[in-house]
Order: sequence, then structure tokens, then C-alpha cells
Amino acid sequence: MAKDFTSREEDYSKWYNELVVRADMAENSAVRGCMVIKPYGYSIWESMQAELDKKFKATGHSNAYFPLFIPKSFFAKEASHVEGFAKECAVVTHYRLKSTPDGGIEVDETAKLEEELIVRPTSETIIWNTYRNWIQSYRDLPILVNQWANVVRWEMRTRLFLRTAEFLWQEGHTAHATQQEAIAEAEQMMNVYADFAENFLAMPVWKGTKSANERFAGAIETYCIEALMQDGKALQAGTSHFLGQNFAKAFDVKFTGQDGKQDYVWATSWGVSTRLMGALIMTHSDDNGLVLPPNLAPFKVVIVPIYRKDEEYKLVCDKAREIKAQLEAKGISVKLDDRDTQKPGWKFAEYEFKGVPVRIGLGPRDIENGTLEVARRDTLTKESVSADGIAEHVQSLLAEIQTNLFQKALKHREENTTSVSTWEEFKEVLDGKGGFILAHWDGSSETEQKIKELTKATIRLIPLEDKYKTEGKCVFSGNASNQIVVFAKSY
Amino acid sequence: MAKDFTSREEDYSKWYNELVVRADMAENSAVRGCMVIKPYGYSIWESMQAELDKKFKATGHSNAYFPLFIPKSFFAKEASHVEGFAKECAVVTHYRLKSTPDGGIEVDETAKLEEELIVRPTSETIIWNTYRNWIQSYRDLPILVNQWANVVRWEMRTRLFLRTAEFLWQEGHTAHATQQEAIAEAEQMMNVYADFAENFLAMPVWKGTKSANERFAGAIETYCIEALMQDGKALQAGTSHFLGQNFAKAFDVKFTGQDGKQDYVWATSWGVSTRLMGALIMTHSDDNGLVLPPNLAPFKVVIVPIYRKDEEYKLVCDKAREIKAQLEAKGISVKLDDRDTQKPGWKFAEYEFKGVPVRIGLGPRDIENGTLEVARRDTLTKESVSADGIAEHVQSLLAEIQTNLFQKALKHREENTTSVSTWEEFKEVLDGKGGFILAHWDGSSETEQKIKELTKATIRLIPLEDKYKTEGKCVFSGNASNQIVVFAKSY
Repeated sequence: MAKDFTSREEDYSKWYNELVVRADMAENSAVRGCMVIKPYGYSIWESMQAELDKKFKATGHSNAYFPLFIPKSFFAKEASHVEGFAKECAVVTHYRLKSTPDGGIEVDETAKLEEELIVRPTSETIIWNTYRNWIQSYRDLPILVNQWANVVRWEMRTRLFLRTAEFLWQEGHTAHATQQEAIAEAEQMMNVYADFAENFLAMPVWKGTKSANERFAGAIETYCIEALMQDGKALQAGTSHFLGQNFAKAFDVKFTGQDGKQDYVWATSWGVSTRLMGALIMTHSDDNGLVLPPNLAPFKVVIVPIYRKDEEYKLVCDKAREIKAQLEAKGISVKLDDRDTQKPGWKFAEYEFKGVPVRIGLGPRDIENGTLEVARRDTLTKESVSADGIAEHVQSLLAEIQTNLFQKALKHREENTTSVSTWEEFKEVLDGKGGFILAHWDGSSETEQKIKELTKATIRLIPLEDKYKTEGKCVFSGNASNQIVVFAKSY
Repeated sequence: MAKDFTSREEDYSKWYNELVVRADMAENSAVRGCMVIKPYGYSIWESMQAELDKKFKATGHSNAYFPLFIPKSFFAKEASHVEGFAKECAVVTHYRLKSTPDGGIEVDETAKLEEELIVRPTSETIIWNTYRNWIQSYRDLPILVNQWANVVRWEMRTRLFLRTAEFLWQEGHTAHATQQEAIAEAEQMMNVYADFAENFLAMPVWKGTKSANERFAGAIETYCIEALMQDGKALQAGTSHFLGQNFAKAFDVKFTGQDGKQDYVWATSWGVSTRLMGALIMTHSDDNGLVLPPNLAPFKVVIVPIYRKDEEYKLVCDKAREIKAQLEAKGISVKLDDRDTQKPGWKFAEYEFKGVPVRIGLGPRDIENGTLEVARRDTLTKESVSADGIAEHVQSLLAEIQTNLFQKALKHREENTTSVSTWEEFKEVLDGKGGFILAHWDGSSETEQKIKELTKATIRLIPLEDKYKTEGKCVFSGNASNQIVVFAKSY
């Protein structure tokens, strides 16, 4: 275990907070609820962005950029939307400061905006107001646009990555001629997110839809992916909304179809955010710090030269550069830490804490023997490996680590997914190991609300597969139910 | 000339505004002064970002992210900085809206911030407040960080890309142990920008420093690159600032050196913005619309199938796909527009207006003859080319177009750069063709200010080369001068 570092068992929440800061992922800023994403953390976010962006473009989407500010009146146009976001908005009211006689500055009261501007918490309103001018006929459809942006939701209780006043995200906003096409788009993007989560973050996810209570403000249907964290709590990792014609009606966006008839346009929106950074940490990391899946690591391998005397330094560094070049020729990103201001032991601890998947140690004796010391972060094991064919060895090792992390997380989820049929069982599991609970639900918001009040558990999702569409009795009310849903406490 | 499109000669300013919108680059939004960057425009910005980001990383920088909001009190800490930015700040004063009885919404006056937050116009203050905790010893230096972000400056007169209330940019913020190292960094980044402008945007630039009047608020020295637009006005395309210890002193950022002594940290900051989009347009575009240098074009080649009958459609599209694959195998990005909802003539006009460097037309007769029609956007010429070896042909053609655009712009700049030695000549050139004017200046802010008041021309830069450090007489005051500087009217 890393020195002076809280273990998960001791205090899971404290472990998380310490890890984020100590692994150089992020820290709190001087602005309440806003974080600074540090270079190492940001490079992981860049990995996520690059992979997601590739997937968005492969499915026909383009990026664009819409204003940070939204006129206040736009919010009032979609009733349920304003309900969902009005309570957590940063509001710009003035556009100038002025100096005070004592050398300070103050807001210039003469520079007051006629209409206040809201810092976007999400962009449906400003985007649909823009789409009105982009769409006349079916030839202008579909519009498949995504935006990478910062958004602000004035949360009262914040936590690095998981819930911050400002966060980074992407928001896709698409416009379609038919309901069917819009639903297919929303489902497609849920699948894109699930594929990304499983194959890139090595994080198994449930796919499904949200109950009415948990739906996005303004959506007809919200699709989601949900992951299970190591402490038995669920985390919503991405959502994709079928918005029907709600925003088209609110902003009067109509198109002329091939048949010459006018109709409102159908919409979707979908997003993932820097919250994924929190999900990543809580899925794989351990009491020794961060654990990164190779597909996501900014550098997959670190090489640490080991030497005592000055004349050894050049020898091992030359060999290290040679190994680095061999790995890079295979497309493996490598960091060689040849700083002589820090000792090898310090570097070992540093990269272990930062979750680098593979560490290669290399000293004079290794060079004599034609070997390298290869350590893997996921299992914390190391072995002496022949320097010949090291690139092939590391390549297959990285694939093995990626698979192992996913399997380990999947096993954890399976061991912590419990089917229950009585309310006693429900409470027992929830108060015990937690995790996902599969249970019949009568479909009423009232039942859902009561369960939430009594236990803090919510319906995380309604699974899509037919096998969960069975007849039974609601675990709480005893009323007839035609579906099994997934409950959990959540982040 | 494109139909219903203003020519440059007719009205340069109108030409620009129309081009930006009609080429799907950007448009005005419902929020005063804020633009919507449309998908095609954004894809060009993405090309710029990708290339710049590669250059930043190659010179050792990492990306990070700092808060959108800056506490008001931070601004007052660096005196000249607040002077420069206070008059154009968007200010957040409240954090909640509430419903009104009539179904509208209003600002909730009970949710007033204790200290107002400024939407960042630039991030020196919040970043140096953060760096205080990152820097203790010389081992923590240098810090080489860049941020890609949106910023807000409440400009009263805005123009798409050139001057908008919100714009996108990157801002590098570095911290160093010595003055020498910080100056070297600031100069390096000016050179990175110049290299990018010339080899990527095909836009020749002057490099130099700014006079005291034109310096960034808080800088000791501002390095810049300046380009000349087709209408004879200059455009500042990028700046790099040596900030001395100003921000370190304002935010109390000290480090312990190798000698054990404490000193303030030395700083730089540097940035380019979506303004480069405006520079790009005004450097190359013509009365037929946008002209893109191949190195920057989202797709370098467009293939348009030409056919009359349905049975021809499949034939030409199959061949077009084959050609596309051949080009892509050489790493050339290609768009095949095989939509049958639009006619070839419409498509020709569309891609010409959008500045696609090379267009390939392909009909049944071409297939018979084994030829293709290859048109280039820069010269508006076309030729029939053998389909054999088309990829090699296009590859060298793209290189030729890139070079040609640069040479053309360089020629324009050279023809519009005039050395003058008298005030009469100065005014004559300025009122005539405009452009860059090389003239002796006595080094006083007073002279500079008077010239500006009389002519609107400012000192765009003080060139770095020794050949301009000559003795002479100031073109305005007649006082002794030891340098020739570059004057122009500017955007």
C-alpha cells in the first residue's frame, strides 16, 4: 500500500478524494465547486475525447460550437426543461467592472444587461433556436452535430469529477424527419457509449432506459449506461435522449417533407462528461493508487533506468532508449524517465501511483544478462524477461492487462448483482453488500418514490432484454408487475 | 464569380461577412456578439487545433484545464491587467432562477453570490493563483501548460471570427526559474506560431515585438506575428508574452533555487484564437468564395460523379469509389458526393464556394477514355488527366497549390510593403494602397499616439532583425531614431 494513503476499506470516500489529487488528476480551485484538471488527468481526458470523437465521426456526426450563454427567455420555452435546470444556473447580469477609489474593482451598475444570460447547463434551447434557421425541408435532415464544451450547473455539494459546478463534456444534438429515425439514433449513441466504456475504459455497463422520474428534463425516453463502482454504488456513465418533438415545438422548428406536408422535427441529445474520469478511477484503482486500462493510458509503458555510478548512467540510458524505440515501432506509447534528480525507488512508487500499466526496470546486471524487469500494475507482479522480442512481449501483455481489468470488474459486478423477490431481501442486500438489485416493479412513480425515500435506492435502469419482461409481483407494493428493473444506490 | 455574391472590390467588408455565412463557416447567434461556428467552419478550426496541439506537445507542453470563472478580487491584484480587461467583462452575480406566477422565469434575488465571478477574458490570474500551490522548488520548474478554452470579452462592435464576445482559443501559461529561460520560451512560441501560419495556413507573417502602447496588459514584452490582408489592413494573428515576475509577485509565487535562495517565478503566456479563421479567409479567398490551403482543408479533394441516366449512376459511382480508395491510400482525405438529390452543376458551385482545393469530375465518357477532369480551386483551371497514376498526380498538385497560395500571398505582401522616409510619403501610401509601411520611429509613446490619432495607423511590430536597427530620423517628429518599425491600419 502507498504510504500515508487511505485504503478503500478504511474510508472509500476519503480514498477517492486523496487519489484524485495525489495522482495529479485534478484539484479544487479557488472558485467554489470548480475544479482544475491537472496535466496528467487532462491527458487521460484527451484519450477519452480522441476515442469518442472517432466513434462519433464514424457514425456520421460533425462537431460545431454554440454560444456559452443562453438568453433567460429561452429557458422558459420548454416547461419541463426549465423545471429541471432553473435551480442550478449561473446568471450573468452585468458586462463591465469599474475601479473603486481605494484601488479595488466593483461591478459597474450602469452596465446591466437588458435580459440576463444563463451560462449553459446544457444547450438544447440555444441549439434548437439555431436549428430553426437551418431546417426548411427534408433535404436539410438529418442534422448530426456534436459539441465539445464546458457547462455549468450550480451544484451545492460537489466532488472532483463526480459532481462539479463546471464540467467538460460533449453534447450531441440531432434533428430527424421521422420518429423512428430519431429513436434509432438515440439507441445507436447508447450503444456507442457502451462499446466505449467496455472496450476502452474496461468498465462493464448495463444498458437500458430510465423511469419517468429519472428522465432528462424534456425527454420522452432516456437511454443510459450504468456501471457499478467498487463500493457497491452505481454510477450513471452516459445518457442518450429521445426528445420527441418537444424542442421543435418550443422553438417552432418545422420541415417540409417529401410529400410536401409540414411537420415538426424529431430530436435527440446525448452526452458524456468528465464524470467518466470518476467512473474510471472507482472501477479499477486500488490501495496503491490509480490503475489505468492500457487502451486509455497516456503512456502505456514507463522505462526506469537503474544505476549507481555515473558511468552506469549512460550505459543504461542508451539501452533504455533502444528499448523505447523498439516499443514505439509497435505503436506503443512509452515514457522514459531518465531524470537523475530522482531515485529509481521514488520513480517506481510514482508511476505505480499514477497507474501506468507496465513498468520496465533496467540496470547494468540486466544488460549483462540480456534481460529486463517487467512489472504490471494490475496484478502488481513482476518478472524478468528476455530483452529479445520485448516489444512483442509487452504488446501481448498490454492486451492481457486490458482484458484482465475488464474481467475483474465484470466479476465484481456479477458478484454484486442480486435478484430479490421480497422487500426483506431487498433491504437486506441493500444494507449489506449493496450493488445492483434486480426486482419486479409495478411501474408506478409513486412506488419508485417511496422506495427512494425509505432506502435511497433508485431505479438505475429498465433493462432492454426480453428476458426481464416477465410477469411477477412488485417487490415493494405487491402489485402486478411486467418487468424486472435494476435498483441501486448511486453517485 | 459566384451568383448574388458581393465582390471584394465592390465592398470588402460585405464580401467577408457574406462569405463567412455562405461558406458555412459561422453565423451570428441569438446572443449579442456570440457566434455559432457551423460544422464546416468548425472542421477547419479542428485542423488548426490538431496541428497546433502537435507543435505544442513536440515542444514539451501538456494541456490542462482551469475554471471558467475568476473571482473578482483576483483581477485587482495585477494593476495593469485589470486596467486592460475590466471594461469588457461578463459578470456572474446570481446562481439560481425561479418561476414567476405567469409561467416565466426570473433571477432569484436570494441566490446572490457573495463575491461576483468574472467569466474569464484570459486566465493569467486564476492560473497563477493555482501555480502558487504547484511550485515550491526549482525541481517543480519549468511548468509548461496549455489550455484550449472559450473566453469572453464584452466587445461593443463585433464581427464573425475577427472580434466576438465569446471566442475559442488556446492559452499557454509557463513558469520558469530564470528570466532567460522565460524569454526563450516566449520567443520559441512566436516562432511556433509563425511556422504554423506560413506552412499550414500559407499565410506569410512578420515576426517582432510590440511597442509599449500595444503590449498585453501585464506583459514586459509582447512578441507577435502580423499578417497582411488583401485589403491592405494588417491582422495580429498570434501573440506571445514575456510576463516577467509580474504575476508571480501579484500572486506570491516563489521558489527555492538550487542555491537555496528564494525568488519569484518568471512567466510567459501565449495564444491564438478563432480569429485565425478570419485571417485565413481574408488572406486567400476570392470573389468565388473560400479558398483553403490543402494542409488545412477538412477534405482536400471532392469527387463529383457526372451522369444522366440511372444506369450510368452505378457505373460512375463505382469508378469514383475506386479513385477515392486510391487517393486515401496515399493519405489524402477525400469526400465523394454521390447524393442523387443534387445536380453536378450545383455541387461544382458548392465546393468551389467552400474552397475545396481539388475537384475531380467523372462521367461515362471519362471512364471510356480512362481520364478524369481535375479542377484546382486556387487558379480556377481544369484539365483532363489520365486515371492511371491519379493519386501521385493529385499529391503533387496539392503540394503545388499549397506553395502557390503562399507565394501569391507573399507577393501581395511584398507589393504592399513600402519604405518611407517622409511624413508626406507616409500619408500618401496610407491613404493610397495601404499595407505595411516601414519607417523610422523615435521610440516615444507620444509620437505613436499622435500618428494613431491622425491616421488610425499603429505600430504593428518592431522587427527583430538587425537590419532594421539603423540610425535615422523619425518619420513624424524628425527626432533621432535607431529603429525602423512597421506601421499599418489594422483589424
